[in-house]
This record gives sequence, C-alpha cells and structure tokens, in this order.
Amino acid sequence: MDLIETIRVVEDFPKAGISFKDITTLLKNKDAYKYTIDSMVEFCRQIKADVVVGPEARGFVLGAPVAYGLGVGFVLVRKPGKLPAETVRYEYDLEYGKDVLEIHRDAILPGQRVVIVDDLLATGGTALAATKLVEKLGGQVVGLLFCMELAYLNGRKNLEGYLVHSLIQYDN
Amino acid sequence: MDLIETIRVVEDFPKAGISFKDITTLLKNKDAYKYTIDSMVEFCRQIKADVVVGPEARGFVLGAPVAYGLGVGFVLVRKPGKLPAETVRYEYDLEYGKDVLEIHRDAILPGQRVVIVDDLLATGGTALAATKLVEKLGGQVVGLLFCMELAYLNGRKNLEGYLVHSLIQYDN
Repeated sequence: MDLIETIRVVEDFPKAGISFKDITTLLKNKDAYKYTIDSMVEFCRQIKADVVVGPEARGFVLGAPVAYGLGVGFVLVRKPGKLPAETVRYEYDLEYGKDVLEIHRDAILPGQRVVIVDDLLATGGTALAATKLVEKLGGQVVGLLFCMELAYLNGRKNLEGYLVHSLIQYDN
Repeated sequence: MDLIETIRVVEDFPKAGISFKDITTLLKNKDAYKYTIDSMVEFCRQIKADVVVGPEARGFVLGAPVAYGLGVGFVLVRKPGKLPAETVRYEYDLEYGKDVLEIHRDAILPGQRVVIVDDLLATGGTALAATKLVEKLGGQVVGLLFCMELAYLNGRKNLEGYLVHSLIQYDN
C-alpha cells in the first residue's frame, strides 16, 4: 500500500515556507490506518518491545494502537504539568528557547524493553528527549519508530546508536 | 476485571480539593489496557459505528486503539491552531472563560455513524462540543463512550438524547 498518497501536504503551515505533512487524512482512511498500525506492530514484535512510549500529542494517536495491537502497556510522555503523579523531566533546546517533557517516575520498570512511537521524525529532538526520560527510569530503548521521516533534516544523527525505523521517507 | 483498581487517585490535582482519576496506571497495565479497549470496541460494534472521533489529548489515547480494533478510521478533534487544513470550530463556555475545539471540514462524510470516545465524562462540555462539530459536518453521533464517568457531575444531562456509555462510574 502506498501510504504517502494518503498524506495531505499543507503548504505554509504552521508558518510560511513549511510544507506540513498532515497525517489526519491517513488516520481517517480505515485501510491506510490499519496498514500503518499493523506495520508498526510487526516492527515492535521483531524487536521484542514490551512497552510502548508515545510523546504528546500525535505520538498518542499512533503509539496507543500499536501498544494495543502488540498486547503491551502504553506510557505517556507529556508537556509539563499534565501528569498528576511524581514525574521526572527532561529539558532540551529548540531553535528559539527550550522545551520540557515529563514522564511518571513509576511508568517504566528497570530493564523493560521500550519502543518509542511518534508520527514524525524531524530533527529528532522530541524522540531524544523521550529516550533520555526512559533511560533515567532504567528502561532500555530497543527502537524508535515513526510513521514519517523528513530525511533531509537528518534526525537520525541525533539518535545515533539507536535502532530507528520509519514507514515513509520524504527527501525534500 | 475490576478496572477501577488499576486507576490511581491523585489528591489535589490539578488544584486543591480535586481527586484526580489518573488513567496512566491503567494504560501501562497490559491486561487492563487490553480489557478496556476490547470492551470499548465491543460497544462500538453493537452500535455499528463506522468512524471514531477523539478529542485532544486523552481522547486520542483511547479513541485511536478503539478505531484500530474496530477496523475504522480515526478523526481528531483538537484545540485551535493545531489542525493544518480548513476547519470548523465550536466555542463553549467554561466555569471561567471559554474554550474552542476544531475539526477538519472534510473529516466526516454526511451520514457517517460516529462514536465519540474520551477518557472521562465530567460535565460533558467537551463531549457536547465534539458532538456539535460532528453534526455540523452532517455526521450522525450514534454513541458517546467513556472509560470513566463522574456520575455526581451529571454530565449525561448535557448529553440528553444521545446514547452514553461508560466503563467505570464514580459516585463521589
């Protein structure tokens, strides 16, 4: 199935000059959605992941069904102040300013085999932050899995040493 | 399975006096998570839903796997400015101030049988907003499905005339 045809490209969103890859047209297409999640589940099975971590908010849309399909638990990585119990946090630099992500301190057991699932690999900043959070809790990140990859941004360089997989690659 | 035992209650979150029902402990428990989604899928099958709508952000965590399990598409309802293509919006009153939700104009086809899935039924404001958005697009809301219901807030009154179902009810 050619997933790329089910993704809508919206020019100049969220700002001028950016070609936004809109996954909502894939999600509402039942065949494309099933194919996407089935493919992601198969990858997670191969790497023997036993928990899925998804960053807010589009990481929830793909990570949660992957966890369900795989028959494992799902763990949220969220923006500050959203998780109610004790958290650990990771702060990272953006082009302008900083961003922070949090995970519940009891979300991952030491030694658990974690796969991080998100919609998009761009520069890899969010994925790296999620990886650091999992590792702070003693989890082992056995793979990072994306629906789409903006290959020209070279996010894989940020994630060197980790197994990275994407279903769709954009070269420009 | 007694799902209620898998939910953590966090006192005084997000503010003093509130007993927050934390679903993350259910989500990370693979048996509870599978049981929850399986139960929700079964309800959606009975009402012959052919698309799932989930409001940002915890609605994604439950709605997306329900759509996958049911074999239908998933549609996002989001906060303003998050959806890249043309949207319709619905503004509603909160205790203090207003809130706005959006859906893509092409997200639902007229006549589609829609189920709205979210984690929590409290006063029903978000669920009603999602319902109005679906109806603006010509969709038929055949059910509203929640993991948890704060029955003492009487959110069902806000949703009169619709089929409402929840897996867990809190009476105080």
